[in-house]
Amino acid sequence: MRQASTTIEIGTSGPGLVDFTGDVARWVGEQGFETGLLTLFCRHTSCSLLIQENAAPAARRDLERFFARIAPEGEGYEHDDEGPDDMPAHLRAALSQVQLSIPLVGARLALGTWQGIFLFEHRRAPHRRQVALHLIGE
Amino acid sequence: MRQASTTIEIGTSGPGLVDFTGDVARWVGEQGFETGLLTLFCRHTSCSLLIQENAAPAARRDLERFFARIAPEGEGYEHDDEGPDDMPAHLRAALSQVQLSIPLVGARLALGTWQGIFLFEHRRAPHRRQVALHLIGE
Amino acid sequence: MRQASTTIEIGTSGPGLVDFTGDVARWVGEQGFETGLLTLFCRHTSCSLLIQENAAPAARRDLERFFARIAPEGEGYEHDDEGPDDMPAHLRAALSQVQLSIPLVGARLALGTWQGIFLFEHRRAPHRRQVALHLIGE
Repeated sequence: MRQASTTIEIGTSGPGLVDFTGDVARWVGEQGFETGLLTLFCRHTSCSLLIQENAAPAARRDLERFFARIAPEGEGYEHDDEGPDDMPAHLRAALSQVQLSIPLVGARLALGTWQGIFLFEHRRAPHRRQVALHLIGE
Repeated sequence: MRQASTTIEIGTSGPGLVDFTGDVARWVGEQGFETGLLTLFCRHTSCSLLIQENAAPAARRDLERFFARIAPEGEGYEHDDEGPDDMPAHLRAALSQVQLSIPLVGARLALGTWQGIFLFEHRRAPHRRQVALHLIGE
Repeated sequence: MRQASTTIEIGTSGPGLVDFTGDVARWVGEQGFETGLLTLFCRHTSCSLLIQENAAPAARRDLERFFARIAPEGEGYEHDDEGPDDMPAHLRAALSQVQLSIPLVGARLALGTWQGIFLFEHRRAPHRRQVALHLIGE
C-alpha cells in the first residue's frame, strides 16, 4: 500500500464551471495505481468542486444560473468588505462541495460515463485556484 | 492493510429516497475488516447520495418536497432535450452529495443511531443506478 | 501504513457555526503521521459539517441567516413531532455536508489559509454532538 499527492493549479476567469477531469486523470494515470481512493480538496472558500454532466454545455449554463439565483448578490449581506460577489461566493461554495473522493478500480477512476470533475468558480475576478490531490492504494 | 471494492445496483421507480443501508452494511460485514474507511460513489449526475433520518417516513417526504420546491421543473431551463425533469435532477444532485465516506470502527460503520444511507432518485422514470463501494483498512 | 480513530464531542448552544479546527489539528498532530487522509464524519442528522471562512465573524452570521432563509421554519412540514426547528434542521444538514476528508501533507492538513472546520448546529436546544475522526497514512 502506498500514497501519492500533488496540487493542481487552475486558472479561472469569472464565475462558472471549469472541467479539469483530464488533468486529474492524467496525474492519477502517472502514479501507476491499480486500486485505490483519490481525494480532491479545494483549498478555498469562494470556489468549490462539483461532479456533473460533462457533455452538455447548456446544462452547465443552467447550473451556473441556478446557483446565481439561489444565492444572489445584493441581499444586504453583513460581510461585504471584499465586494458584492464575495458573500454569495461563500454561500454557493457551502451549497456545493469542497471535497470529493473517487474510488480507483482496474486502474481507472470509477466515474460514470457522463460525469466530469469541475472547479466551480464563484468570484468575478480571475483567480489561480489550488486543488490538493491525494491517492492511497496500490 | 488491504482494500475491497464492489458496485451495488439499486432499482428506482421515480423521485424519492431509497434506503440501502442494509445492502451496504452486509457487504462491509462480509469483507471482515475491523477498522477502515468506506467510500460510496454515485456514478450518475441525476441522482445522488444522502445520509438522513432512518426512522421517520414523514421526514423523508418533507425532504423530497423540499428538493422539488427549491429546484423546480418548468423554470425555462436551456438544457431540456431529455425532458422537463432532467435539469432539475442535475440541480438537486448538485445540492446533495455524489460521494460519502464513513469510518469503520470496531467492525461497524460509525453511523449514528438515526442515520441511514439513501440513494436520492431525481428522475421520474424507473432507473437502475450504480453506486461504487471502496473499503480500505484491515 | 497505519490508522488512527477517535470521536470528538462538541457542545452547542443553539443554531450556528462552531469552529473546532484546533481540536482536529491537535488530535491529528498527536498521531504523528507525515502523509495521509483525515476523514470527519458527523453522527447526526440535524447538524452538519462545513469548511468556511475562519477570519470573518460577519461571514459566519451571513451563512447562518442564509440557511435559515433557504430552509425556514413554519413551512407546514409533515414531520413536526420533535418541534418546529427539527425538519428545517434536517433540510439544512442535507444542503451542507455530513462528512469531510482532508489530505495530510508534510504533517499538516491541506487546509487553505482562510479555511476553518465548523460544526453547523441546526437545532435550537443545546446538544452534545459527536464527530468521528479517522486517519490513514504513515
